[in-house]
Amino acid sequence: MNSSRQRLVVIGGDAAGMSAASQARRLKDADKLEIIAFERGHFTSFSACGIPYWVGGQVEQRDALIARTPEEHRARGIDLRMRTEVTEIDVDRGRVRARGPVDGTEEWVPYDKLVIATGARPVRPALPGIDAAGVHGVQTLDDGQALLDTLQGTVGREAVVVGAGYIGVEMAEALLNRGYRVTVVNRGRQPMSTLDPDMGELVHRTLTGLGVRVANEATVTKILTTEDGRVRAVATDDAEYPADVVVLGIGVRPETGLAEAAGLPLGQHGGLCTDLAMRVRGHGDIWAGGDCVEVLDLVSGRERHIALGTHANKHGQIIGTNVGGGYATFPGVVGTAVSKVCDLEIARTGLRERDARAAGLRFRTVTVESTSRAGYYPGAAPMTVKMLAEERTGRLLGVQIVGREGAAKRVDVAAVALTAQMTVEQMTALDLGYAPPFSPVWDPILVAARRATRALTT
Amino acid sequence: MNSSRQRLVVIGGDAAGMSAASQARRLKDADKLEIIAFERGHFTSFSACGIPYWVGGQVEQRDALIARTPEEHRARGIDLRMRTEVTEIDVDRGRVRARGPVDGTEEWVPYDKLVIATGARPVRPALPGIDAAGVHGVQTLDDGQALLDTLQGTVGREAVVVGAGYIGVEMAEALLNRGYRVTVVNRGRQPMSTLDPDMGELVHRTLTGLGVRVANEATVTKILTTEDGRVRAVATDDAEYPADVVVLGIGVRPETGLAEAAGLPLGQHGGLCTDLAMRVRGHGDIWAGGDCVEVLDLVSGRERHIALGTHANKHGQIIGTNVGGGYATFPGVVGTAVSKVCDLEIARTGLRERDARAAGLRFRTVTVESTSRAGYYPGAAPMTVKMLAEERTGRLLGVQIVGREGAAKRVDVAAVALTAQMTVEQMTALDLGYAPPFSPVWDPILVAARRATRALTT
Repeated sequence: MNSSRQRLVVIGGDAAGMSAASQARRLKDADKLEIIAFERGHFTSFSACGIPYWVGGQVEQRDALIARTPEEHRARGIDLRMRTEVTEIDVDRGRVRARGPVDGTEEWVPYDKLVIATGARPVRPALPGIDAAGVHGVQTLDDGQALLDTLQGTVGREAVVVGAGYIGVEMAEALLNRGYRVTVVNRGRQPMSTLDPDMGELVHRTLTGLGVRVANEATVTKILTTEDGRVRAVATDDAEYPADVVVLGIGVRPETGLAEAAGLPLGQHGGLCTDLAMRVRGHGDIWAGGDCVEVLDLVSGRERHIALGTHANKHGQIIGTNVGGGYATFPGVVGTAVSKVCDLEIARTGLRERDARAAGLRFRTVTVESTSRAGYYPGAAPMTVKMLAEERTGRLLGVQIVGREGAAKRVDVAAVALTAQMTVEQMTALDLGYAPPFSPVWDPILVAARRATRALTT
Repeated sequence: MNSSRQRLVVIGGDAAGMSAASQARRLKDADKLEIIAFERGHFTSFSACGIPYWVGGQVEQRDALIARTPEEHRARGIDLRMRTEVTEIDVDRGRVRARGPVDGTEEWVPYDKLVIATGARPVRPALPGIDAAGVHGVQTLDDGQALLDTLQGTVGREAVVVGAGYIGVEMAEALLNRGYRVTVVNRGRQPMSTLDPDMGELVHRTLTGLGVRVANEATVTKILTTEDGRVRAVATDDAEYPADVVVLGIGVRPETGLAEAAGLPLGQHGGLCTDLAMRVRGHGDIWAGGDCVEVLDLVSGRERHIALGTHANKHGQIIGTNVGGGYATFPGVVGTAVSKVCDLEIARTGLRERDARAAGLRFRTVTVESTSRAGYYPGAAPMTVKMLAEERTGRLLGVQIVGREGAAKRVDVAAVALTAQMTVEQMTALDLGYAPPFSPVWDPILVAARRATRALTT
């Protein structure tokens, strides 16, 4: 062994961890850097975001969701240890304890550099019946397979989705596609609490129009089961919904038990705190990224926890670059998210009204109706754009879009404008692509920016 | 008449002129501002960009292309005089000479404020046979109707499109839709000279795949006619293409004869020169906008002439705001344009390689292949993204995209980034919307930005 050879240990074999490992390997050969990665599950580098479409049948094969297999990682010179769980991080001595898959024996593995990419775990409330057969999360490929097995074995056709965020509405669509009657039980006033309620109401209407029963402001109190331990209904404070299958889509929390036990700094959302280079604060040789960290919201100036594959991949890329001897930073996020339920597209970026208030901002909001293409062009689809702008400065604070084809990705324009701290008046002059098949002569984003500019001066 | 009442005269009743008139009227009542608008044609506020789709049959009714009729403008308090041509501007005495539709009598009409929105005229080379029956421009609704009449009366099925820019390829599609065999005669190395040739070649391949014959590097020398004066073929230096109908799509020039005769300042492309408030330079009470002006290219720092409805509408809005006593400016463009031919989407923004060289910039280019959605998601369509970045600063200089569904409007992200003068490295951190139906986990624009960042450091 080369005396100058260092060892990188990666905890977690999904997007952030394996991106970091791959990028570090790209920059440093194996004789300079040994890379050991531990993954406690059965898969590496898979698309959790794709699970609803696999369950719904648009994606036929589970393996289509796997971006890179363990073998592919190993072929690139990464010593990947599957089904091996890290049970302790010993920061003082620079080592992790790993429990192997066969007989559960543990060994201490020293590291020179450590990457923590332990991801997030789904919220699973401690309700009576929560562990009944037929109650499923959709976090891992194993979860997805278990849900598909349940669907195959189910005689009844009643499904209850708990939660009406991205995963909730996507799973509602998936279950509709599988021929289920779907009830969504939602704690909030409207579905998609990542939107303001007025925009969430548009999602509610679409869900209802698709035949989904949506119970808003409803909290699940217990899961009712049959004598043989299978789910039969979901109970809320004031109602009971029959259920042959239940999908939990309540959200996730950073998986930071290991980090916490090791005394690493956690933020108020329970995620690891890092510097701009994705180094764990106060620890020169430990990096963290993906769903287990908090990120800076560039609009509000606050830390947030956002579990999203695209951030995890960016983090991994940046960590790998830094570990590999390069230099890269992650400046933060503006909170962009897109989703769909059947042909309804849903997008947001920046702050909602409540976020802006919580951040101490004073603002105006406008909501406009426009279309995806020139009104006369076939397929022109309606969309609603809501825009928030700060009083006095006129700075863009956030955009929410609900509409049909062509609605969701328009939010990217606002995401870049937020990053560049543009005012809504500056946005009115943006040189966005115009041709009748692609946009009205005033793109919906421009229409909203004009209206917001006017609102600020009246 | 109120002694403080002023008169605004508008020359040209299309996008820029009527937007200016409407916005001025919104800000100032009729007792403060009289508005007289002259339009020499039969229509106001129509979408010239929509003509190819009307000719192609996707848009069935001509009137669908009319955003606002003369009657609608009049109902808003604009004294609109149709088929009335302004034949002279007398700047010294603040008046225009207008020739009425009925008997051609002319009258002088004084103005306090003047808006010049005379648009552009199509290039029509002085070739033998250019005025033959069956040779058509596609600039006005009358042009479109005349072309449709020709198509209806044509027995043969051979069409030649002269020019392979936006109008050329859109008209090629329209004529394919009408069942014609189409030949495109193109002076450049590849179609779409608004792209670099390597990207234009992708358009060439698609056109050829659709059965369009594309003659590149070919200059039309004459139009051959039958004995009764109808077109029968188009001749180039070295070939002859049979033609039952010919469509000219060679481009347009600013229509600034009136302005030139009045001694107003023209730029090197023949367009009017304005200040940031769209005032004609050196003239406090004369504004100009739309296809008859030159605009500042924010990336190269040079003036350009770009005939595009979306700019014309913005100019009109800004002029109307200033004329109406408000304040607004047009900072310039970054050169965004989108188009399609059948299901191929084509987009560009910023500088091509030749533009960057002409502007004295040193740069790197990268070209990446990606997809519109996650690779495993149904309908994921390939796209090619080319990106130019400045050496040393790393500043984004331009993006070109050719692909299928979801390709064209992605250019908007680059348009905003150009406006904000972002570096390609800054772009790698952009928080763009990600979900499998809408994007791979790395959006194609991010993939290109990463590659460009790497190219700049190696």
